[in-house]
Amino acid sequence: MERKIILSEKEMPEYWYNIVADMPNKPLPPLHPGTKQPIGPETLAPLFPMELIKQEVSTEKWIDIPEEVRDIYTLWRPTPLYRAYNLEKALDTPAKIYYKYEGVSPAGSHKPNTAVPQAYYNKQEGVKKISTETGAGQWGTALSFACQLFGIECEVYMVKVSYNQKPYRRIVMNTYGAKVHASPSELTQAGKQILSQNPDSPGSLGIAISEAVEVAANDPGTKYALGSVLNHVLMHQTIIGLEALKQMEKAGDLPDIVIAPFGGGSNFAGISFPFLRLNFEEGKSIRCIASEPASCPKLTRGVFRYDFGDTVGMTPLIPMYTLGHNFVPSPIHAGGLRYHGAGAIVSQLLKDQLIEARSHFQKECFEAGLLFARTEGIVPAPEANHGLATVIQEAKQAKEEGKTKTILFNLCGHGNFDMAAYEAYLSGKLVDEELTSDQIEKSIAQIDHLQV
Amino acid sequence: MERKIILSEKEMPEYWYNIVADMPNKPLPPLHPGTKQPIGPETLAPLFPMELIKQEVSTEKWIDIPEEVRDIYTLWRPTPLYRAYNLEKALDTPAKIYYKYEGVSPAGSHKPNTAVPQAYYNKQEGVKKISTETGAGQWGTALSFACQLFGIECEVYMVKVSYNQKPYRRIVMNTYGAKVHASPSELTQAGKQILSQNPDSPGSLGIAISEAVEVAANDPGTKYALGSVLNHVLMHQTIIGLEALKQMEKAGDLPDIVIAPFGGGSNFAGISFPFLRLNFEEGKSIRCIASEPASCPKLTRGVFRYDFGDTVGMTPLIPMYTLGHNFVPSPIHAGGLRYHGAGAIVSQLLKDQLIEARSHFQKECFEAGLLFARTEGIVPAPEANHGLATVIQEAKQAKEEGKTKTILFNLCGHGNFDMAAYEAYLSGKLVDEELTSDQIEKSIAQIDHLQV
Repeated sequence: MERKIILSEKEMPEYWYNIVADMPNKPLPPLHPGTKQPIGPETLAPLFPMELIKQEVSTEKWIDIPEEVRDIYTLWRPTPLYRAYNLEKALDTPAKIYYKYEGVSPAGSHKPNTAVPQAYYNKQEGVKKISTETGAGQWGTALSFACQLFGIECEVYMVKVSYNQKPYRRIVMNTYGAKVHASPSELTQAGKQILSQNPDSPGSLGIAISEAVEVAANDPGTKYALGSVLNHVLMHQTIIGLEALKQMEKAGDLPDIVIAPFGGGSNFAGISFPFLRLNFEEGKSIRCIASEPASCPKLTRGVFRYDFGDTVGMTPLIPMYTLGHNFVPSPIHAGGLRYHGAGAIVSQLLKDQLIEARSHFQKECFEAGLLFARTEGIVPAPEANHGLATVIQEAKQAKEEGKTKTILFNLCGHGNFDMAAYEAYLSGKLVDEELTSDQIEKSIAQIDHLQV
Repeated sequence: MERKIILSEKEMPEYWYNIVADMPNKPLPPLHPGTKQPIGPETLAPLFPMELIKQEVSTEKWIDIPEEVRDIYTLWRPTPLYRAYNLEKALDTPAKIYYKYEGVSPAGSHKPNTAVPQAYYNKQEGVKKISTETGAGQWGTALSFACQLFGIECEVYMVKVSYNQKPYRRIVMNTYGAKVHASPSELTQAGKQILSQNPDSPGSLGIAISEAVEVAANDPGTKYALGSVLNHVLMHQTIIGLEALKQMEKAGDLPDIVIAPFGGGSNFAGISFPFLRLNFEEGKSIRCIASEPASCPKLTRGVFRYDFGDTVGMTPLIPMYTLGHNFVPSPIHAGGLRYHGAGAIVSQLLKDQLIEARSHFQKECFEAGLLFARTEGIVPAPEANHGLATVIQEAKQAKEEGKTKTILFNLCGHGNFDMAAYEAYLSGKLVDEELTSDQIEKSIAQIDHLQV
């Protein structure tokens, strides 16, 4: 069999899959933080174009991908599905390992799958400028790229610690024409408030979201865009799994286990939801595992609670597995996974035990990434290494049990902009810090919102 | 028509094309620097495995690609051929622009096309370690990757200015398991000699070659590998053009002009030689243009002369267009093109007016690269931007003349590790320095070798 299973542009899916249609328990609605009542479209209208708000609450099973979006997708899609022969050999495992490689996009990750349609719908509704946040920089890069293609201004609030550690990321965004600010900044009330309390704040995704939301809320010509967590974002990513399903069929195979790293949920949802559909529709029992960092373990050690999406408390309350919106993860290098909460859909699926979660310390993750680079060639993004750690655990278990099984993994991006993290690992400077139950309980105790 | 023209792994070429078989005037032989007589295989045997030496002097038209090499090639090959619809639209040109994208390789450039077979032949002959040089880092990354796959030790002498400017490049090589030294180093006689004359030497490709060659010459278990210039290296790269030819045929098209950046010749040879074959065999008149930096203009302002491949004078004398082996290019950012000479085959082709050359100042190159990134999405390597500058000139000329023409361009790699150069351009810090005729004459006057 060929190493890569390729689809032609004609075989690219024409619809996104909306898992809400098939969920036995639908996700709970977001609530207004003041009234504690479900919010209507008008609450979100200052932040998002109407078409995305409709998608956010849609229960339609399939949503058309607009032709103009599909045209831009072909700049890198369909992406290849690889059989990881070299990795299998190195692990001496009977397991078959496949990976979907999303790093072929110009931005180097899966994020443009939603950045492009988000920019498109904003353009359709006459939006001139989009503000957003970025952690490790993957999302900011993707949105900068998408906005440039549609002639929309893009303003990115980048978590300060990443802004300083990853100058190349900022320059890529500039190359695509975006303005980038280190967050917390003096440009917003939210930023000023944080800085007045802690002038040396390294920033966090939650803070950067507060800043970007404020910018959009205060300017009628500006909207806001989020790179994960929300329903429509997760749905746009399902093109990954829809392609992968076609490719697995071409390979004459079907995964027993689907694995993806977990930050806010878009990466995991993208590859796993189209396979969960087979569980719902055809009674299959494909296991879907979300891999999260032990330093930010909302799925494995958080609580299911209504909580804010940001730090300052500007967003609606979302039903989520959370560590508390004030949780500040230790500055591990997998910046994209440093978020306190999970999206509403994924949280409901986990609560209903329809998906699984697993956490890994970062040394195990980088060990997995190094083995991958030295066998398959691609240097994975640190985020992706979390999923790889789960893959390797499962492959080793298959060997111990002498069972074959088929594993599908979402290699969501390359690590070209994250080499400082590999340097830290190679030089023995990475430290695994155990989060104590005390720390987690304290952070969760700060959530004074509704129990679910 | 689809935006990307894709080949299956089954359609990947099984032979490299050796242009020497078809050249009306064969390249002149390399000479021993002492005797000035053509060298035999025994002179090269301490540096290269015998199979590569045979390829270096072969006049066979087609050389088999070993199955094990083809298997590794499928980690990224066949590479996509793109129709640059977005760039065409931005230029409002009647020209059709295609680009072959080699940046999908794990190393991010075309260099693994030769690194893999070189590592393979060394492994076949029991070699334990390979030494090499690298400028911008593309070649060192590719060889590190290839050596890791074959379990060969790899030692890279990296031009000091790049070593300091591009720490991520060094870390990638470490990630693939290679040892990397800043050159000039204290580890070799050549390095010590340079440092004793100039302790602050920023290094050059010529110096790094001297160091790597010395390491191999002094250790029977170590061989040397070169990433460009030599005949066998250029031949390995022809898989690019052989694939592109199949892809152009699928698109129902044939280029009028083939364009590639030029450093030592491997990139240019890779895409253009299979099209020059059509000129030789079928009487076609496809123009092939090599794009070089105005700061290192060996093809457009150098002389055709026997000269050393390195600075210290350890290599055989090679018949080449050269600026003199002591030429130190100004520290422009397109590090991979900072080499004083051109390979023997390309030099002969240029002398016989079978190919063309053009030079560009770097601001024009980065302007081209920025336009490309903002339309096609991929941020090109600075080397690639030189070719893009020529593409844009030709596309604009087509518009002025109201003529359609078909342009094929080798996008040899991405710029993910070169963002500092984009930063310099975006912030207005790039300067174009005109080389005076005096400077070039002085450098050439230092060549005391045979006229051709």
